[in-house]
Amino acid sequence: MTAVPAAPADLATYLGELRGVVNSGLARVWPDDAPGLIVDAMQYAIVGGGKRLRPCLALAVAEAAGARQSLDARTAHLLALPSACALEMVHTYSLVHDDLPAMDDDALRRGRPTAHVVYGDGLAILAGDGLLTEAFSVIAHSPSRVLPAGAPEAAPAQRLRAVAVLASAAGAVGMVGGQAIDLAGAGRVIGRTAPPMNAAALEDMHRRKTGALIRASAALGAIAVNADESVLAAVDQYAKELGLAFQIVDDLLDVEGSPQTLGKTAGKDAAAGKPTFPALHGVEPSKRLAADCVARAHAALATAGLAGRLGEIADWSLQRKS
Amino acid sequence: MTAVPAAPADLATYLGELRGVVNSGLARVWPDDAPGLIVDAMQYAIVGGGKRLRPCLALAVAEAAGARQSLDARTAHLLALPSACALEMVHTYSLVHDDLPAMDDDALRRGRPTAHVVYGDGLAILAGDGLLTEAFSVIAHSPSRVLPAGAPEAAPAQRLRAVAVLASAAGAVGMVGGQAIDLAGAGRVIGRTAPPMNAAALEDMHRRKTGALIRASAALGAIAVNADESVLAAVDQYAKELGLAFQIVDDLLDVEGSPQTLGKTAGKDAAAGKPTFPALHGVEPSKRLAADCVARAHAALATAGLAGRLGEIADWSLQRKS
Repeated sequence: MTAVPAAPADLATYLGELRGVVNSGLARVWPDDAPGLIVDAMQYAIVGGGKRLRPCLALAVAEAAGARQSLDARTAHLLALPSACALEMVHTYSLVHDDLPAMDDDALRRGRPTAHVVYGDGLAILAGDGLLTEAFSVIAHSPSRVLPAGAPEAAPAQRLRAVAVLASAAGAVGMVGGQAIDLAGAGRVIGRTAPPMNAAALEDMHRRKTGALIRASAALGAIAVNADESVLAAVDQYAKELGLAFQIVDDLLDVEGSPQTLGKTAGKDAAAGKPTFPALHGVEPSKRLAADCVARAHAALATAGLAGRLGEIADWSLQRKS
Repeated sequence: MTAVPAAPADLATYLGELRGVVNSGLARVWPDDAPGLIVDAMQYAIVGGGKRLRPCLALAVAEAAGARQSLDARTAHLLALPSACALEMVHTYSLVHDDLPAMDDDALRRGRPTAHVVYGDGLAILAGDGLLTEAFSVIAHSPSRVLPAGAPEAAPAQRLRAVAVLASAAGAVGMVGGQAIDLAGAGRVIGRTAPPMNAAALEDMHRRKTGALIRASAALGAIAVNADESVLAAVDQYAKELGLAFQIVDDLLDVEGSPQTLGKTAGKDAAAGKPTFPALHGVEPSKRLAADCVARAHAALATAGLAGRLGEIADWSLQRKS
């Protein structure tokens, strides 16, 4: 669905392979015995494509961290696959709810009508609720239904830790808290006047709203292969910088991109008077901020000897066009 | 807030004590470092009171199952407390979302304006999302923030199993799936005509929408004390019957109750043309159906030697007025 034109050919191939692993897992996340109606709506939201950034990052981190303990790439990917699927489910639920008329009121997502346009607001709310809930189910049930028969599986302690890290990143401290700040900033909360948002407040909002889940993606990849705490710390720092770079580039694409390449409405943030990095800092300084993040991401990887694909992903985050 | 007038004096005292334990845990579920706005909305929804049926059931089952392995009541309650809090958080999130204009459109809940009336639809959606997500956080993090310092804690394998059971009960197969059926039945899903609902379809909807979480409540209580599988099976059967009895009595109260004792709008199901047990079977036959459920609940307890308070709770489910 969404092309990844700016990635170097070999990185594009690599990410395409990871997306294939992720999508094979996502094809199996649907529980038996659920009413067809709710599964339809959940599938509509998740099958629509997208970059699969978060689950691919989890697999790439699992592979890089696993290599340090002599795990082959396929084994590392399978160990991380339930977490990877859960991350994409949580991300997709957040998009479905964020697109609702009561939130950002967006009619186009990943190049298609949003879930509430197709099914109505009520079922879209439930589809989001279902995706969020099933994300935890996919990690906690053993063997996870996303794994092929006989696949290796992370130990219970690692899976419980993955649940804890994912819940914290997606919850009130992280994503949901960031969405609440965003909503209040747009003047959409009864009894709250929109506070003016300076650069520090903008970074805090993004750290919660999108940064926390990207950090969790890296953490869950490392947890799945039972990586050392030093590796966990390094990939957490890497992902923190990567997430901020992604957000800055998202804001730049909203200014400079087109709906055709973005697959969603462009110029919407500016039209809604939302604070963005280019609005606060200017376009060229924002590009330099993103490049600084990527430099720090590389430095974090170097502390744990984890360059390779993770470094290329950081570079790609600057160059992407969608 | 909500009185429990129909419970025998000593059962009322017992349930009041359990509610005290639950509420002490719920006072500690709020994560540090979350934006005040989202915590306010989550607290508003959960602090409003209610019977705390699900968490009290979890504690009562933990106590009864724990007694078989010589655990004292206080220890059993503490082992189950994170799960109990999570159950109430999941239940509360479902009420917040169910009350939205896009769903049941209810302005009154537990005797107070619903969350979306107070904060707006957007923040109410996020508050529900936050409660659902933090429910898993409270079980998965160790030590759980709901426990007092030094409290005993269930082992990782039990906590992971609790996450799995809770996610299945709350997800597409259970509660969310039941809500979707309910919404479609009300003609609120785009492109779906409301199917006529017979008695079997009504029971299937309730089994998912409310029954699954009540069964999970009993299961999580037993899992927290690492009960035998035979005890788990018995309390699951007990809770299945208890949940159906509760639903039938809810429907009867909607016909016969008053907003003052219910704390919510009465007669609403009938006015909305929703199928109910009294509408399908008549009032007196519905009362007999509920009594049959309670008889089967007692029989299930007897198979595992688990009478006592659990049996009294089943009897109370028939007699309650709110």
